[in-house]
Amino acid sequence: MPSTLAHDCVQSWMKKVPEWEHKENQIERIFEFDDYMSGMDFVNAVAEIAEDANHHPDMNISYARVAILLTTHDKGGLTESDFEVATRIDSLVD
Amino acid sequence: MPSTLAHDCVQSWMKKVPEWEHKENQIERIFEFDDYMSGMDFVNAVAEIAEDANHHPDMNISYARVAILLTTHDKGGLTESDFEVATRIDSLVD
Repeated sequence: MPSTLAHDCVQSWMKKVPEWEHKENQIERIFEFDDYMSGMDFVNAVAEIAEDANHHPDMNISYARVAILLTTHDKGGLTESDFEVATRIDSLVD
Repeated sequence: MPSTLAHDCVQSWMKKVPEWEHKENQIERIFEFDDYMSGMDFVNAVAEIAEDANHHPDMNISYARVAILLTTHDKGGLTESDFEVATRIDSLVD
């Protein structure tokens, strides 16, 4: 498990995942789909990435809107793991 | 779409779903599982119920903990649909 990233390093990573919002100790991206089951397909694809990476984002589902939140709870902040998983999630839709 | 329930009617329904907590205009139940994929199996089962009922609860996934929140947004409160879906969700685990 990597350690938390310094501020300038977070800023550097944020440029690679510009669709994500940096909020205190976490990053968040909202994904909107045309219908509920398309959102659920996405949720299941994220779950596969999460299991593979052994790093599990919080997911908040509200009909076809899915919010993904990443942080490294064990470390109390953002680590490389968060940005690696964010990059993989982006590749599902972008 | 049924109309919102009067206070005494909500109280009556709450006795049928005692594991749920009544919070203002919604009801919530937290489900905890042994591992992440067990939680995801549950989420998918809830999604099937939601599609079948055309009534979609919010779901907040945090590792193996899944919070389900039900309200009827169109009506601004609790309706029979919420309690019918809650009962069906309970039947998945109880």
